[in-house]
Amino acid sequence: MCRFVAYIGKPIMMYDLLFKPKNSLIKQSVKASEMEEPLNGDGFGVGWYTPEANDMPGRFLSVRPAWNDRNLQYIAPKITSDCMFAHVRAATDSPVNELNCHPFHYGQYLFMHNGDIEGFQKIKREMVRHLPDNIYANIEGLTDSEHLFALFLHQLEKQRAKQLPIKIANALEDAIVEVEQIKARLKVKEPSYINACVTNGDIIVAVRYVSDLSLPASTLYYSEGAVYSCEKGICRMKKSKNNKDNAVLIVSEKLSNKRSDWHEIPVNHIVTVDKNLEVNLSVCERTLKTRASS
Amino acid sequence: MCRFVAYIGKPIMMYDLLFKPKNSLIKQSVKASEMEEPLNGDGFGVGWYTPEANDMPGRFLSVRPAWNDRNLQYIAPKITSDCMFAHVRAATDSPVNELNCHPFHYGQYLFMHNGDIEGFQKIKREMVRHLPDNIYANIEGLTDSEHLFALFLHQLEKQRAKQLPIKIANALEDAIVEVEQIKARLKVKEPSYINACVTNGDIIVAVRYVSDLSLPASTLYYSEGAVYSCEKGICRMKKSKNNKDNAVLIVSEKLSNKRSDWHEIPVNHIVTVDKNLEVNLSVCERTLKTRASS
Amino acid sequence: MCRFVAYIGKPIMMYDLLFKPKNSLIKQSVKASEMEEPLNGDGFGVGWYTPEANDMPGRFLSVRPAWNDRNLQYIAPKITSDCMFAHVRAATDSPVNELNCHPFHYGQYLFMHNGDIEGFQKIKREMVRHLPDNIYANIEGLTDSEHLFALFLHQLEKQRAKQLPIKIANALEDAIVEVEQIKARLKVKEPSYINACVTNGDIIVAVRYVSDLSLPASTLYYSEGAVYSCEKGICRMKKSKNNKDNAVLIVSEKLSNKRSDWHEIPVNHIVTVDKNLEVNLSVCERTLKTRASS
Amino acid sequence: MCRFVAYIGKPIMMYDLLFKPKNSLIKQSVKASEMEEPLNGDGFGVGWYTPEANDMPGRFLSVRPAWNDRNLQYIAPKITSDCMFAHVRAATDSPVNELNCHPFHYGQYLFMHNGDIEGFQKIKREMVRHLPDNIYANIEGLTDSEHLFALFLHQLEKQRAKQLPIKIANALEDAIVEVEQIKARLKVKEPSYINACVTNGDIIVAVRYVSDLSLPASTLYYSEGAVYSCEKGICRMKKSKNNKDNAVLIVSEKLSNKRSDWHEIPVNHIVTVDKNLEVNLSVCERTLKTRASS
Repeated sequence: MCRFVAYIGKPIMMYDLLFKPKNSLIKQSVKASEMEEPLNGDGFGVGWYTPEANDMPGRFLSVRPAWNDRNLQYIAPKITSDCMFAHVRAATDSPVNELNCHPFHYGQYLFMHNGDIEGFQKIKREMVRHLPDNIYANIEGLTDSEHLFALFLHQLEKQRAKQLPIKIANALEDAIVEVEQIKARLKVKEPSYINACVTNGDIIVAVRYVSDLSLPASTLYYSEGAVYSCEKGICRMKKSKNNKDNAVLIVSEKLSNKRSDWHEIPVNHIVTVDKNLEVNLSVCERTLKTRASS
Repeated sequence: MCRFVAYIGKPIMMYDLLFKPKNSLIKQSVKASEMEEPLNGDGFGVGWYTPEANDMPGRFLSVRPAWNDRNLQYIAPKITSDCMFAHVRAATDSPVNELNCHPFHYGQYLFMHNGDIEGFQKIKREMVRHLPDNIYANIEGLTDSEHLFALFLHQLEKQRAKQLPIKIANALEDAIVEVEQIKARLKVKEPSYINACVTNGDIIVAVRYVSDLSLPASTLYYSEGAVYSCEKGICRMKKSKNNKDNAVLIVSEKLSNKRSDWHEIPVNHIVTVDKNLEVNLSVCERTLKTRASS
Repeated sequence: MCRFVAYIGKPIMMYDLLFKPKNSLIKQSVKASEMEEPLNGDGFGVGWYTPEANDMPGRFLSVRPAWNDRNLQYIAPKITSDCMFAHVRAATDSPVNELNCHPFHYGQYLFMHNGDIEGFQKIKREMVRHLPDNIYANIEGLTDSEHLFALFLHQLEKQRAKQLPIKIANALEDAIVEVEQIKARLKVKEPSYINACVTNGDIIVAVRYVSDLSLPASTLYYSEGAVYSCEKGICRMKKSKNNKDNAVLIVSEKLSNKRSDWHEIPVNHIVTVDKNLEVNLSVCERTLKTRASS
Repeated sequence: MCRFVAYIGKPIMMYDLLFKPKNSLIKQSVKASEMEEPLNGDGFGVGWYTPEANDMPGRFLSVRPAWNDRNLQYIAPKITSDCMFAHVRAATDSPVNELNCHPFHYGQYLFMHNGDIEGFQKIKREMVRHLPDNIYANIEGLTDSEHLFALFLHQLEKQRAKQLPIKIANALEDAIVEVEQIKARLKVKEPSYINACVTNGDIIVAVRYVSDLSLPASTLYYSEGAVYSCEKGICRMKKSKNNKDNAVLIVSEKLSNKRSDWHEIPVNHIVTVDKNLEVNLSVCERTLKTRASS
């Protein structure tokens, strides 16, 4: 089911984000706390932006487990970035392969997913049928996640002013709606668990979604504060006196035990973090409508 | 453009086939003789059958170059088989990845390709449109080769008595015809170079094809004899006195300089090797018809 | 701390040994039962003999976790052997790397280890000081295990009739004695946990050793019977009526819950399995003497 | 025999150094111009400094060929550094493995080598005999290169003021002297080819050395200028009007055909580039003495 972290804010070192927290993503690769099967050892990936160089993200993917990857250990202390994605994978259906590692990339965008679109094999070809060629050609791997990313990119192309947080959020929701519509059309009854996170380097949008509200959605949290700070393995967002927040984290599971630091994103809600690091939560209205109509 | 070898006959050691010849496939991975760009260092694969265990092929794929792969060096002397495929890759369009390494596998079948369906990106989705779900789901990588294999499998399903060499040959040709029809329909003018080889463990079928006869087809040879024998790097088919042949090789390039040992497969011909190791050559009539009608 | 299995007897398929048991080695790579830290995801290796080809072992090593390795999944059903070693690694001190994967190889011999020579870094150079050049040059990795193998090979060269089980057992014990002597000389107080297993393809010798009897030795079991048989995940040695045993297993942990099938090897004992598959257990007398004299 | 490039000066993008030149290191990995065997496909490595983060170098090593490595393609455009090392490997004696990839690392230092200490297997253990434990423990791989680096580190420890270019140069030369002395003592007659390059992030020292002046030393060049600039694949050091140089390159082979841009380092000379980017060439006097006395 995978685990991920996303960071946006004042530039920090990748090492501090990935390795320092008590319950860091690296530790979650060996032994995650908030999931049934604790192991996420089927490859990993990191993506980051350095706007001073260019708009495109950097990325490092590996099929090896994150916990003992030497390249990551050498690279992480040398990357400082204001926007980072990181993901450790627990393969469900598709092989352990770099092409199946998150975050996926297209143009300025990075995308990662923790969840499972059950019945994906039955809807896979239908998902690609209407994609424009450029987006279809960008699908390199075999995961439900990357196919969802393709639907998102297609929906985004239909939006105007597609750099706005609300537009990215709409495209993400519309991609989920499209998945549910295809499933309905093909009479695929299995549920979808979709915790997904997308960025263009300036804005982060994440969703916590489950198609059947009687089922437990995967966990998803955010945290905000003045500065990301690590002391003795306790990594948290320090609060500022003047209420000015300078950093936001979105994570599959809490990086520390301090509960008050972490806000649970409610089920079937979407969260946007804009350029000013304003966090905005809203209910997934579009998917609600689909459900109502079905 | 890749290089390959296929063997069928009396069981031999994989090591003797891959490493011993003066111009072995391993040497061709570093420095092929009969192609412009001599390097085939973008991964490799071997497949083989051991009918005493079961009908399915074994396989070993790697993204590392074949010339210095230690696992291959340890495995090759321990595999004895009556039917083996081996392939070294020079990536053209798609990434160096195990999912893009040949031979591809489906059920009892192995398939490998040396060539290039130019304009593949333009016809890729059309190639998968009419595939049955099981064959579509078996596509894991991004190559033109694997997509051609999928068309072949689909054509084969349409044949009766599909274990007969002639049926496998028909399906292979029909897959090529389908490629050309799709290209014609989508007005893709680029040529196709298709040297492909398929087996079910009992029978080998290979084709040497180029869509435009004014262009140079890739080389393809076969050799037959009583026994595959290596002396001081000269590996060849020994002729038998009683005219009984016990082994056949199909290769992208000659494994030795002794020209009389190697028969060039004429352009746009298909070669079948049946259970009795009879070699049969025939012109690609089906593709001729397509060409005539276009 | 790693996990391993060794098999000798009537030829069986590698797949049946590695994948079929309820508590197979592949499952132990994800979640071992009889160790504190259940994960063995830092690479793996298999070695096997096919005497009909030659005396040398085949081997396949990988830095990827065993649980999702596709090459292993394709190779294991095609290898049938009368003597197999397999090992999943939990790295302690040295990096995840193919050169640190077990089983190690020299000439006809394969060697694997589950344990930890604590303080190894302090005695490492002393361990290699007196090795002959050929054995020193064979050390390729950084593990205590491979250095112990080198000492064993050196001790074996000093034995006459070194193909006899008793001689191999003596050499293995002498290697442990040498480790303890070096530690004593250099005043290294840390304990040694050494569960090791060596074979030449005909004979298996294993030891369960801990330097300080007040500490818990790692588990080690053997099982013998007429034939290795798997039914619904319960893999065991079937007993024969005529008391003729045809197969022996030596394993880090029991492959099934049926306790009566598994004999615990007592702490500081050595077990030999000879060509006739006779199992012989004896106390580690040589190491006892060292302990007494220190 | 490998190829390398080293850069120090005004921060530049790793991508511009590795990919943009007509005869870039990436192209040299496929087809080097100034060596007999043009292929350097047995792994690669890059190292770099970002002093704003810390003193330690970052590093990325891979066993895959550099020409098609996707991680490198994603990382290189995002790294900007004032001091970079990059190396593509052609394995001679030791296996293709990350532990055998250059640049090697210890503390602040990076080291890379293009050459061959012939007869290395005969002197290998003697080379490590007198190393302090910390330096011995840092040897992870099997190459002559890494063993030479260990001797260098040991010699450097004996120097006072070891951050001075002259001291680093002395230690590098003393390491070569030590190699020659060991070879003389053990009557190893084979020659040594040592083009080596070392840095602490502030200073680069390189040597072009061959033990027998009647043999052809490997090529080595440097280039200096105001700014590293690439136009249409022609990458060169632009000269400044005010004679202030801001960047220095040291390379195994010329990155462009413009001969006047490149200064050949004479055989058995050592070149230092100090913090002010002053380039200083001097003859290897210490090795000369050894030769004279032998």
